[in-house]
Amino acid sequence: MRFDAASVEEADVSDVSQLAGLAQPGKQVWVDVQGLSDHDAIRAIGTIFGIHQLALSDIVNTGQRPKVEEYGSQLFVVTRMVQILESGNPDWEQVSLVVGPNYVLTFQDRIGDCLDPLRERIRTEGSRIRTSDEGYLSCMMLDAIVDGFFPVLEHFGERLEEIEVELIRQPTPGLLEDIFLVKRDLMSLRRAIWPQREFLTRLLRDGHSMFDEQTAPFLRDVYDHAVHIVDVTETYRELTQSYIDVYLSSIANRTNEVMRVLTVTATIFIPLTFIAGVYGMNFSTAYPTNMPELDWRYGYISFWIICILVVVVMLVLARRLGWLGGSPSAGLRNRDS
Amino acid sequence: MRFDAASVEEADVSDVSQLAGLAQPGKQVWVDVQGLSDHDAIRAIGTIFGIHQLALSDIVNTGQRPKVEEYGSQLFVVTRMVQILESGNPDWEQVSLVVGPNYVLTFQDRIGDCLDPLRERIRTEGSRIRTSDEGYLSCMMLDAIVDGFFPVLEHFGERLEEIEVELIRQPTPGLLEDIFLVKRDLMSLRRAIWPQREFLTRLLRDGHSMFDEQTAPFLRDVYDHAVHIVDVTETYRELTQSYIDVYLSSIANRTNEVMRVLTVTATIFIPLTFIAGVYGMNFSTAYPTNMPELDWRYGYISFWIICILVVVVMLVLARRLGWLGGSPSAGLRNRDS
Amino acid sequence: MRFDAASVEEADVSDVSQLAGLAQPGKQVWVDVQGLSDHDAIRAIGTIFGIHQLALSDIVNTGQRPKVEEYGSQLFVVTRMVQILESGNPDWEQVSLVVGPNYVLTFQDRIGDCLDPLRERIRTEGSRIRTSDEGYLSCMMLDAIVDGFFPVLEHFGERLEEIEVELIRQPTPGLLEDIFLVKRDLMSLRRAIWPQREFLTRLLRDGHSMFDEQTAPFLRDVYDHAVHIVDVTETYRELTQSYIDVYLSSIANRTNEVMRVLTVTATIFIPLTFIAGVYGMNFSTAYPTNMPELDWRYGYISFWIICILVVVVMLVLARRLGWLGGSPSAGLRNRDS
Amino acid sequence: MRFDAASVEEADVSDVSQLAGLAQPGKQVWVDVQGLSDHDAIRAIGTIFGIHQLALSDIVNTGQRPKVEEYGSQLFVVTRMVQILESGNPDWEQVSLVVGPNYVLTFQDRIGDCLDPLRERIRTEGSRIRTSDEGYLSCMMLDAIVDGFFPVLEHFGERLEEIEVELIRQPTPGLLEDIFLVKRDLMSLRRAIWPQREFLTRLLRDGHSMFDEQTAPFLRDVYDHAVHIVDVTETYRELTQSYIDVYLSSIANRTNEVMRVLTVTATIFIPLTFIAGVYGMNFSTAYPTNMPELDWRYGYISFWIICILVVVVMLVLARRLGWLGGSPSAGLRNRDS
Amino acid sequence: MRFDAASVEEADVSDVSQLAGLAQPGKQVWVDVQGLSDHDAIRAIGTIFGIHQLALSDIVNTGQRPKVEEYGSQLFVVTRMVQILESGNPDWEQVSLVVGPNYVLTFQDRIGDCLDPLRERIRTEGSRIRTSDEGYLSCMMLDAIVDGFFPVLEHFGERLEEIEVELIRQPTPGLLEDIFLVKRDLMSLRRAIWPQREFLTRLLRDGHSMFDEQTAPFLRDVYDHAVHIVDVTETYRELTQSYIDVYLSSIANRTNEVMRVLTVTATIFIPLTFIAGVYGMNFSTAYPTNMPELDWRYGYISFWIICILVVVVMLVLARRLGWLGGSPSAGLRNRDS
Repeated sequence: MRFDAASVEEADVSDVSQLAGLAQPGKQVWVDVQGLSDHDAIRAIGTIFGIHQLALSDIVNTGQRPKVEEYGSQLFVVTRMVQILESGNPDWEQVSLVVGPNYVLTFQDRIGDCLDPLRERIRTEGSRIRTSDEGYLSCMMLDAIVDGFFPVLEHFGERLEEIEVELIRQPTPGLLEDIFLVKRDLMSLRRAIWPQREFLTRLLRDGHSMFDEQTAPFLRDVYDHAVHIVDVTETYRELTQSYIDVYLSSIANRTNEVMRVLTVTATIFIPLTFIAGVYGMNFSTAYPTNMPELDWRYGYISFWIICILVVVVMLVLARRLGWLGGSPSAGLRNRDS
Repeated sequence: MRFDAASVEEADVSDVSQLAGLAQPGKQVWVDVQGLSDHDAIRAIGTIFGIHQLALSDIVNTGQRPKVEEYGSQLFVVTRMVQILESGNPDWEQVSLVVGPNYVLTFQDRIGDCLDPLRERIRTEGSRIRTSDEGYLSCMMLDAIVDGFFPVLEHFGERLEEIEVELIRQPTPGLLEDIFLVKRDLMSLRRAIWPQREFLTRLLRDGHSMFDEQTAPFLRDVYDHAVHIVDVTETYRELTQSYIDVYLSSIANRTNEVMRVLTVTATIFIPLTFIAGVYGMNFSTAYPTNMPELDWRYGYISFWIICILVVVVMLVLARRLGWLGGSPSAGLRNRDS
Repeated sequence: MRFDAASVEEADVSDVSQLAGLAQPGKQVWVDVQGLSDHDAIRAIGTIFGIHQLALSDIVNTGQRPKVEEYGSQLFVVTRMVQILESGNPDWEQVSLVVGPNYVLTFQDRIGDCLDPLRERIRTEGSRIRTSDEGYLSCMMLDAIVDGFFPVLEHFGERLEEIEVELIRQPTPGLLEDIFLVKRDLMSLRRAIWPQREFLTRLLRDGHSMFDEQTAPFLRDVYDHAVHIVDVTETYRELTQSYIDVYLSSIANRTNEVMRVLTVTATIFIPLTFIAGVYGMNFSTAYPTNMPELDWRYGYISFWIICILVVVVMLVLARRLGWLGGSPSAGLRNRDS
Repeated sequence: MRFDAASVEEADVSDVSQLAGLAQPGKQVWVDVQGLSDHDAIRAIGTIFGIHQLALSDIVNTGQRPKVEEYGSQLFVVTRMVQILESGNPDWEQVSLVVGPNYVLTFQDRIGDCLDPLRERIRTEGSRIRTSDEGYLSCMMLDAIVDGFFPVLEHFGERLEEIEVELIRQPTPGLLEDIFLVKRDLMSLRRAIWPQREFLTRLLRDGHSMFDEQTAPFLRDVYDHAVHIVDVTETYRELTQSYIDVYLSSIANRTNEVMRVLTVTATIFIPLTFIAGVYGMNFSTAYPTNMPELDWRYGYISFWIICILVVVVMLVLARRLGWLGGSPSAGLRNRDS
Repeated sequence: MRFDAASVEEADVSDVSQLAGLAQPGKQVWVDVQGLSDHDAIRAIGTIFGIHQLALSDIVNTGQRPKVEEYGSQLFVVTRMVQILESGNPDWEQVSLVVGPNYVLTFQDRIGDCLDPLRERIRTEGSRIRTSDEGYLSCMMLDAIVDGFFPVLEHFGERLEEIEVELIRQPTPGLLEDIFLVKRDLMSLRRAIWPQREFLTRLLRDGHSMFDEQTAPFLRDVYDHAVHIVDVTETYRELTQSYIDVYLSSIANRTNEVMRVLTVTATIFIPLTFIAGVYGMNFSTAYPTNMPELDWRYGYISFWIICILVVVVMLVLARRLGWLGGSPSAGLRNRDS
């Protein structure tokens, strides 16, 4: 946790009571509370900074819907931050901001986050953030949080591209599951970014005393990013739906292909087997009307000629009806392999 | 039923006329009517508290759409409460609130409900609810009712997770029915919560003399919860749709798999059977042109060699075309088993 | 047709000119025109009550979209009434209302309708409707018309339940047709109720001099019912969509099941037939290398042992791959039978 | 082209310059330009009536989105007119209106159109259109154009009914194509009528000096028709979607049926063929253990008895599993034939 | 880069500092920056023209969502330009406009673009653009950019038509991929044009000092085009969805057709093979009860007669059930070939 004004002071505070005297006129204070399990400490902080009881319960009960609320001169913001874990799954964290005159409080459960670059900028001499008010600071925080969605979107964009390549190369059932998981994650993403877009719209439209004319463009910038994220998320979701269509049709195609092979094989050999069966019959050849073919000199050769004729006719028919069509029917699945 | 002010008084009233003199200046009265079948009693209560005839008929005819209406200084609210029965099905109940100066009337059909914790808080000395007006009290009631949706949502969340696990392990037709039943319940849920969200929006936007500045944040809190429930419900509904897609594709996959086995078996054995049939023919071997193979020393061995060759060629072809692909095609269904 | 005020007078008027002197100060007049084929009569009525030419043409050309229009001091309302015929099909009828100072005109094509209960209430001494103005009367009419949708919705609700039961018991193609017909009827229902909801919203929002403060709650009540009907209709439509999904998947399941039996039968018997074919071959057994099995003492018994082995191996394999799975795969279709 | 006021004058003008002196105080002028290929003439007309350059280019470049624009005292309207060709396809035409003080200009590409009845009404002595201003005249034109959609909708309604009948009688792939073509046409229809509805909404809401109080109801009437057309179009589009569902399911049903026949045939005859194969084997009957059945007196008869037993058992099984189900499974396809 | 006023001056500026003195009263300046990789130069230009830091970062980071922002007297516009590459893929480029008093700056990454015709018009003596202000100039630029979408839409329209023809002639899996790719491109198109439509709506509604009354119609024209593009894009997207439906159903149809051939072949030959098998059995004919047919004089001929009878019965049955139906079942696929 730290102070920042013309000069920067940082301090790790473990005892909440030290925070009481922090505020000084003309200085900005940013208190970053990491870890929300110590309810007493948070209640104490709430008392020091006069945070409303409902805001405090929202801070502690993570899983809130992102929102902005005004309590007197304080602005209370709940947002969701996201990052991609090494396992490839998105990891959600609720970050709550309490913005009051000359101070900004942030609450989050875990240590280490997307606000680090902001800390760097505060430490830098002469950065704009040093000479600005709490509105600009909180605006930068929102910016950092919203911009944290972009790498996640890129991650999903890459996964979708991989899925598309795989889908064209060889669609497996596991792929469908992948599509489904991406879709579910995109649904969470949308659920997190949509309300943030909403409250940014409201902040922009109704204005707030904290965001003066100089800060407004930056807030609008955050809003633009949120809208952009919403757009991309929606597009990705539509893409997953299209992928499912392509997947299902590729399965249907494979069924078709397998079917065709079965049909061709069966329709060629079933008649042949029948003919062979005929000449395996044991009708008494004593009568000349019974199976005279068996006693022909070229009976066996004729049999083979008939068989070959049947096969040729069948193949010609099959080709005509397009059942053998090699490349076009192998299509989607074999294109790259 | 009970009184509450600086001091708390509770009374079970079975004779409606006792309610007439309840109201005292500076004291809050909460009358909780349980059981709606006694129309006369309810009409009597309506007369005592001056409830509009339409409101009374809405109270008695459960199955109303949740709504808020103003009748003079009274606020009439219809809401739906939900809880999960032991059978796992959601159980709906209409709760109507009539909020007037210094009194709140609640009407419900069954005994025992989600307002119990509220009663506890009223009984507690020094709780905020004791010193607040009827606006705060009714707001807390709405909060209790809306929060009653969360365990139900959790229940559905768990059922959906079970379904997902089952879907990946082994999709059965019964599972589809489960998905369908969850979807139907989610549709009811949405139908109940959506109008509550709507009237909360209106109450927040237009304000009401009952909800003073101190109560407004609590009302906003109720609203936030309602919006959250709507969000989650919508996400769950989309999930069920995705589950149906996955289910259908897994059926298609199974058909495919069964098909492939049939095709491979048939295409291997049908030609072999034909060959066997050929040498079962009874062409007269008197002529050297007829079936000389039958008299070859190694005819039988040659036959088996040809058969094995056919099988090998078939298997190589099948493998090339990906019809034998064990693990990838077994995919979704066998992954966990 | 009838008069109603402090006293009630009813009269069947067949000559339009008798209507001219009907209006009396302090009395409400309700003229109910049944049958729209006599264009001249309707034009005459139009002239007597000063109905706008466009309203008249809307009255006569049934099939209008429900709407409300103001012509000077007159309010012109077009609504659609619905009832279930004995055949189970919904029957639509356009009812037009012209509401002016102290009179209400209703126009409908057929005799006998959902306004009968209203007539009863007017005939009843002391009913509120007797002492109220034309706003309240027309409001009650709209209420009667809108409430006429509820039995229709119930009818569809029951049909959908029957369909669901049937769907789980034994899905037949006729069932799909039923679902489709219900869906089409629900689409008509929605097309009729949606614009009524719309114009009720507008009437409520903009108000109208005819609907004074005492009538407003009743109008709001009508509106609530319309919204409720819209909600239920939408839910039912979604249900039909889900039913179609379930139906299609049950067909896919049946195909699967039939497939599985074919596959198991074929994969078991095709190899056996091949083996039998082998020993039906006529290779000359003069050479010891040719089919020595035929001369073995236990050749035939060995053959049967091999066959049984093949069958057992096949069945074990099939069970492993889940192709015989009795109860789970029979699933949806057999559950109840 | 023609004049109309108290008296009617009509003139075919081929030289644009004759139009210059047309306007007379107190007289309405309607110039109907048919054929848009002569750009110079149109530019000349534009100069005479002071039409804005952008409006002129919109007139000439057909394929504009329907819209209304104000240029000073002129109102510029682009609409789309539709009629059904004899081939059954809809035929689109852009009609542009320029409405200024005392004159209305219409521009269309082809001769002969839905404005003919309007011309008749103008020629009729004492018709309202003769004594009204240019607002009423243009309103009547819009009415004629919008009403021109109704026969087209009816045409599509009939085609959809034919498709439905055909769908239930015998679904062929050509039918799907028909459904698809109707859907595409409905999409064009919607694209044409939707913006017209939009600009009518705007005209009604914002009003315009041209449409005085007496004309407003007529404009509202046009608007109502447009909304009605939009409603019906949307319903029809949903219907086509349902038809596609029914079509796909009927194909699935047929596959099922064909499958069932194949399965029953195969599962009955494959075991029989195997048995016949067994007794065709040539095991040496010298040993009593080898195929003793062949030497039984009633061996052959036993064989047939076994065969019949197998068939009976199979048929009973098949009936039990519902594979032979005659009428219910023939269902949708055979109902009418 | 160039000057334009009464006289036209063009200059290629490679040193940014030369831009500093460009602005002259009464003259319009258009600076077209091509290539965005030289961040320093762009920052220098930003300093000269006083561009806001956020605008500058949006200029350099292409991939922004199209938007309009006001910074003091400057209007900052981000748009996306599209053209079809020779490969048939759309090529996107971000174009940023900074419009200030008497100057317009455009930033784009590549050289050569859709603004060329505009340059021509500026060079032309007496063109309207020469005497107008920066509002008109920027409006013309937006017009050029938006109109650049039309050829792209036409391109997609043609591709969709080709796809439709192909779909009816012979649907291959590659076709599905084509549909899918077009759909994806249409999604990008929509994502680019939708926000442009949005900001044009806002510019039109709220107005801006730069766009005076004379320019407004032109801006409205740009807006109309944008709306038109959105409409067409949406229609095309719906078309692709319909194509996918048709494609899937044509696959189902083919499966059906292949199935039918297999079924007919199998159901005809399987019984025949069985009969042939029967007479291939080696029951001892010593007993008269064993296979007496074998010793009949016309046994063999009877066999063939039975076979022919079976085939005829089968064919008649198959025809009755519609399994041979030539033209109707060949349907969609063979219509044109």
